[in-house]
Amino acid sequence: MGPGPINCYPRVLRAMSTPLVGQYDPVMTGYMNETMALYRHVFETRNPATVLIDGTSRAGIEAILVSAIEPGDKVLVPIFGRFGYLLKEIAQRCGADVHCIDVPWGEVFSLQQIEQALRQVNPKLVAMVQGDTSTTMLQPLEGIGELCHQYGALLYVDATASVGGNPLKVDPWQIDAVSVGLQKCLGGPSGSAPITLSPQFVEQLMPRHHIEAGIRESGDHEGNGRRIASNYFDLPMILDYWGEKRLNHHTESATMLYSARECALTLLDEGIDHAIARHKLHGRAMAAGLDGLNLERFGDQQHKMNNIVAVYIPQGIDGEVFRSVLLNDFHIEIGTSFGPLHGKVWRIGTMGYNARQDTVFHTLMAMEAVLRRMGHPLTPTQAINNAYDIYASA
Amino acid sequence: MGPGPINCYPRVLRAMSTPLVGQYDPVMTGYMNETMALYRHVFETRNPATVLIDGTSRAGIEAILVSAIEPGDKVLVPIFGRFGYLLKEIAQRCGADVHCIDVPWGEVFSLQQIEQALRQVNPKLVAMVQGDTSTTMLQPLEGIGELCHQYGALLYVDATASVGGNPLKVDPWQIDAVSVGLQKCLGGPSGSAPITLSPQFVEQLMPRHHIEAGIRESGDHEGNGRRIASNYFDLPMILDYWGEKRLNHHTESATMLYSARECALTLLDEGIDHAIARHKLHGRAMAAGLDGLNLERFGDQQHKMNNIVAVYIPQGIDGEVFRSVLLNDFHIEIGTSFGPLHGKVWRIGTMGYNARQDTVFHTLMAMEAVLRRMGHPLTPTQAINNAYDIYASA
Repeated sequence: MGPGPINCYPRVLRAMSTPLVGQYDPVMTGYMNETMALYRHVFETRNPATVLIDGTSRAGIEAILVSAIEPGDKVLVPIFGRFGYLLKEIAQRCGADVHCIDVPWGEVFSLQQIEQALRQVNPKLVAMVQGDTSTTMLQPLEGIGELCHQYGALLYVDATASVGGNPLKVDPWQIDAVSVGLQKCLGGPSGSAPITLSPQFVEQLMPRHHIEAGIRESGDHEGNGRRIASNYFDLPMILDYWGEKRLNHHTESATMLYSARECALTLLDEGIDHAIARHKLHGRAMAAGLDGLNLERFGDQQHKMNNIVAVYIPQGIDGEVFRSVLLNDFHIEIGTSFGPLHGKVWRIGTMGYNARQDTVFHTLMAMEAVLRRMGHPLTPTQAINNAYDIYASA
Repeated sequence: MGPGPINCYPRVLRAMSTPLVGQYDPVMTGYMNETMALYRHVFETRNPATVLIDGTSRAGIEAILVSAIEPGDKVLVPIFGRFGYLLKEIAQRCGADVHCIDVPWGEVFSLQQIEQALRQVNPKLVAMVQGDTSTTMLQPLEGIGELCHQYGALLYVDATASVGGNPLKVDPWQIDAVSVGLQKCLGGPSGSAPITLSPQFVEQLMPRHHIEAGIRESGDHEGNGRRIASNYFDLPMILDYWGEKRLNHHTESATMLYSARECALTLLDEGIDHAIARHKLHGRAMAAGLDGLNLERFGDQQHKMNNIVAVYIPQGIDGEVFRSVLLNDFHIEIGTSFGPLHGKVWRIGTMGYNARQDTVFHTLMAMEAVLRRMGHPLTPTQAINNAYDIYASA
């Protein structure tokens, strides 16, 4: 019940023991095409360039940034938590001229703040997180894509922690590139990073298009731009592999493909709106329950993700001892946070398979038992009652 | 029955549907430590720095090269097939001053050739493949590590296609860095890249050691060397994550960890020597069977990998039509090759779970049926008889 990775949907676990097929077997390429189509629905986009990166969610981030950025390019990174720093760090390693703006942890940006920075920095790319688990905040994205385009910038969003539990409308919101992971609201394991790229985003990569020696044939067209600094994360190559040419690049992990496909099917079978409503309901019940434990919530509650909540660790309680008792005696894992919030808050998730009524009740019961044992003042059964009230009125 | 990926061991498939645990759960960190120990046995090394890279085998290659190479460093790449070109390409993207030597496809290097190049180039690093599936050749490695050290260079070997089916003795052969994948003789899926690094190799990375903003704490020691160009592939960070500090980096894919662990357990339960002997036996039977189909073997048979054989596509047979009939009518996939061998040879693998007597017989039977139908002259049943003779005398 932490900030992810979380327990996997049983059907996703089962999908991962599917026998492998060769990478050019029509069954495999059929699955690849189907997975692209499924993620277009997940992302609410028509982007042809919707594929998986074989690695964890930060592999998706790096593939997008290293392919888009040429040394010296101006990149604007609005930072409202730990994963904003990650975008900054990766962009810097790509040689970008990175400009950051930030808000205190627990807040999000206004459109005015973004616009002011766009005007001042004049970036080629804006890179930001939608939901930052480190603070539990969800950055509203409506209007930002439009603003970026108005100032001649492309918009990239890391939606790893938010996708599937909060609205993410790639085309309506004019987002040019998105990367996610499976291990949060999509209810899968980490290890595959679905991404989607707008035609405009792909267009600006193509001057850097290159084909590996050893598989290049005479007559193949290549761009004359600066070579992308990574082979593994070279998006034009990855698109050639997923596209009709099927040019050999990495060997797509069949297991992670099955997993990503099953996560998308699970979400779409439930219905995206239903899944978001479910995350919202169980998130509200958990938050109300934590109030009942006499714990103070952290951050701007108007801009919290549906799938995670943070509370201050109460005075006199050792947060790490609490977490370890909860894990060892009740088999429930919750998180602390990073940087300025390390040791200050606990983070409790309700996401994917764990966004359920029984897990909420079970977690609140266990937290109450441990907090009472550790001397924290609270009204017995108030947590369960609060959560029950939310469910009763839903 | 191609050059990999191949059918997975059933126990490895089963392991991948194991429920997930959180990345800092003691069960998970226990599995991580156990997996490091298992791969030390697989690699025949005592290197503490033996971990998994979350990605396909080329992710392992890139992690090692991008972490070891600083722009301008001299790197020597002896090339004897397609995957040598890949090492060259990745090293170039890392900004290395790459020097290559090559031999015709189907041959390997002598120690003298390597030594001459070391003397001429004076590289910081030598990067080479042990077994290149594109040509089926196995480069003998004994003596090369010693030579490299004599000339002040470190030796990196990509053993993806060879590990588990051919001897690979990291410490006795003084290899400083090795990366592999699961999808060949280890009988797993692609998507995890076990690597091992010698203390000397790790030592030279440490000036570039860095801790991410957002998790850095005052008092943390960092190197003052040039930042590694990739975050995802930053080996000192990855070692901090796998090491006692457990500093957050990527979120280790629990599923791929289970998979890599089960592949190692499968190999060690069988015994490395036994597994190598098994690959050798079935490889010999397959090759003898192909002789019986009146097909000519490609390349230096004294230096062929145990687990794969290539034969020339006979005159008058369309190689791609043959492969597709074999796949559609018999459900058997074999490979063609790349570059100069594309459309010239077929490659037939006997690796991992597919290195079995029944798969060899079944493949030869099917190839004979299709070749006869396509008009290729051959003596009926000779293929099966040849293979049977090998088994009978084993």
